[in-house]
Amino acid sequence: MEKILIFGHKNPDTDTIMSAIAMANLKNKLKKEAKAYRLGNINKETKFALDYFRQEEPELLEDLENSQSVILVDHNDFGQSVKNIENANILEVVDHHKISGFSTSEPLYYTAMPVGCTATIIYGMYKNKNIEIDSKIAGLMASAIISDTLLLKSPTTTDLDKKVLEELGEIAKIDVKEYGLEMLKAGTDLSDFSADELINIDSKPFSTNGVNYQVAQVNTASIEEVIKDKEKIENAMKNFISKNSQDLFVLLITDILENNSQILVAGSRKDIAEKAFNVKLNDNTAFLPGVVSRKKQVVPVIDKNC
Amino acid sequence: MEKILIFGHKNPDTDTIMSAIAMANLKNKLKKEAKAYRLGNINKETKFALDYFRQEEPELLEDLENSQSVILVDHNDFGQSVKNIENANILEVVDHHKISGFSTSEPLYYTAMPVGCTATIIYGMYKNKNIEIDSKIAGLMASAIISDTLLLKSPTTTDLDKKVLEELGEIAKIDVKEYGLEMLKAGTDLSDFSADELINIDSKPFSTNGVNYQVAQVNTASIEEVIKDKEKIENAMKNFISKNSQDLFVLLITDILENNSQILVAGSRKDIAEKAFNVKLNDNTAFLPGVVSRKKQVVPVIDKNC
Repeated sequence: MEKILIFGHKNPDTDTIMSAIAMANLKNKLKKEAKAYRLGNINKETKFALDYFRQEEPELLEDLENSQSVILVDHNDFGQSVKNIENANILEVVDHHKISGFSTSEPLYYTAMPVGCTATIIYGMYKNKNIEIDSKIAGLMASAIISDTLLLKSPTTTDLDKKVLEELGEIAKIDVKEYGLEMLKAGTDLSDFSADELINIDSKPFSTNGVNYQVAQVNTASIEEVIKDKEKIENAMKNFISKNSQDLFVLLITDILENNSQILVAGSRKDIAEKAFNVKLNDNTAFLPGVVSRKKQVVPVIDKNC
Repeated sequence: MEKILIFGHKNPDTDTIMSAIAMANLKNKLKKEAKAYRLGNINKETKFALDYFRQEEPELLEDLENSQSVILVDHNDFGQSVKNIENANILEVVDHHKISGFSTSEPLYYTAMPVGCTATIIYGMYKNKNIEIDSKIAGLMASAIISDTLLLKSPTTTDLDKKVLEELGEIAKIDVKEYGLEMLKAGTDLSDFSADELINIDSKPFSTNGVNYQVAQVNTASIEEVIKDKEKIENAMKNFISKNSQDLFVLLITDILENNSQILVAGSRKDIAEKAFNVKLNDNTAFLPGVVSRKKQVVPVIDKNC
C-alpha cells in the first residue's frame, strides 16, 4: 500500500490543519494508508482547538521526495505548498480557493467548491461515502468552519457552511457560538509575537500580471492593540518585501468582534491597494469597514488592479 | 435567473455532447436555467446515439459574450474550449482529463476524477443530489461511457465506469454490449469524409514545454481501409500544421475490434513521437499494439518527451 501525505498550505491556519487531519481520517476509514502533515508552526487559535479536542498536532513536513503520492487540502497554488511539490504525484486536491494555473501530467481527483471552508467540502465526502464522523473529528472540522468564516460572519459563508457547522456541532456536542468565540479569542492573543512573526502568522503570496504581492491577516479583539506597534510592523513588512522581491504587502488587522479591518500597506505598488479599496492611504494605513475576508474582499480586488 | 451555458470541447465526441446534455438536465431538475451546446459538428457515432434515444442535437455555440455564466464538461484547457472563454464566468468544471494551467479569478465548483468518462462523474452527481435519471438521459450517458472506454476495453476504464454503465444500461433498458458495438461501428463509417475532415473528427491541440502538438483519433473496424488514403491524410496533416504553427501531429487510427492503433505522424518534431512510443517510424507510420487511449497512452508519453 502506498503511503499518502496530506497537507494544507504554508503558514497553516485552522482550516488547513483540521482539513488535513479530517481527510487523513477519512482515507484511513476507507482503508488507505494516509497521514496528515503541517507545513509550518501551528497558530494559537489552532492550538486551542487541537488541545480542546485532545488531538496531537500533525508532524512537520519540510520537503517531498520525488513522485511521492500526496493530497493537497485548502490550497492549489504551488507557491503556497511544500518544497518539491512540482515533482510529486498529486492524487487529489480538495479546496475552496480560486484555481491558480494548476497543472498536472495525469488526470486526478479535484474537488473544489466556492464555500467558506475546506472542511465543509470534506464533510460532504464523508456523507457521500457513508462514513460516520467521530465526535473528535467533528469538533476539529467545526473549528475549521468557525475559523474560516469568523463564526459564520464572513461574506465567504454559504448556507452549506451554516448547515454543516450546525450538524458538526451536534456530533461534537459543543455550543458552537460559545466554543467558537473562545477559540477565535485564543487566536487574537498576539502578545508574544515579534513584528516579524506577526506578519507571518497567516500570510500568503500571490502573483498576478507580473505583480508579486503578499497578503497577511491577523485577528484581534482590538485593532488599536496591534496598531500601536505600527512602526515595527512596517519595518518587518519592508524587510519581507526586499527579501522576497515583492511589489506590495497588505496586512489585514481584522477585528473579529466588530467584523472590520484596518490595513497596513508597504511596497512600491501601494497605488494598487489604494485603487483596489478605493481609499487614500493615510500614513500607509486605512480602515475598511466590513472587510474581513482575504479571499473574497481583498485578493480579487487587488488582482483586478494588477 | 441567470442562464447557464453548458458545453464540452471543440471537435465534439460522444462524451462531450452527452455530458453537456446530462449536466443541463441535472441543473434543470435542480430548478436552474441551463442549456447544453456543442462547439462543432456532431460525429456519426454521436448522431447514431442521439437518434437512437430520440434526442435532438444541441445548438451550435460559436462565441461567448463577456461574463457569460458557463459550465465546462469534459475539458478544462481553454485551447479546446469556445472563443472568448477567457472572459466567461466559469461556475463549474466537470472533467476527467489532466488539468492544464487552469486559472480563474474566483473560487468555483471543480469536480475532476481519473475515470474513463465524464458521464460517470455526472452519474455520481445525480446520486448525490438524489435526482432520478430518466431512461433517455441514461441511454445518452451510457453511450458516452461506451464511446470513451471503447466498451470498457480502453485502459482508462475504471471499476466505477463499469458499475455505472451497468446501472445506466438497466435504466435505459438496453443490451449494453449489443447496442455498444452497433454504436461504435456507426462511428467507424469514414467513407464520406475528406482527408481534411477526417483529421478533424476528434482532434485536440496540446502545448507542453513550448512544443505545440495535435493528437487526432479515428475509430475504425479496419486500419487498412483508412491507411489506403495515407498520402492524402498526410497532406492534410501537413497543411494543418503549417496553418496552426504546430511542431507535431499524431493521428491515431484505432481498430476498435482488436484494440490496437496505427499512428501517422507529421511535423518537424517527429522525433518526439519516436521517443514517446519507442518505435522507429517507417514512412511516418508505426503500429502500436494495445494502444487505444489518447489520454492515457499517448498524451502523457508525448508530454514526457517534449
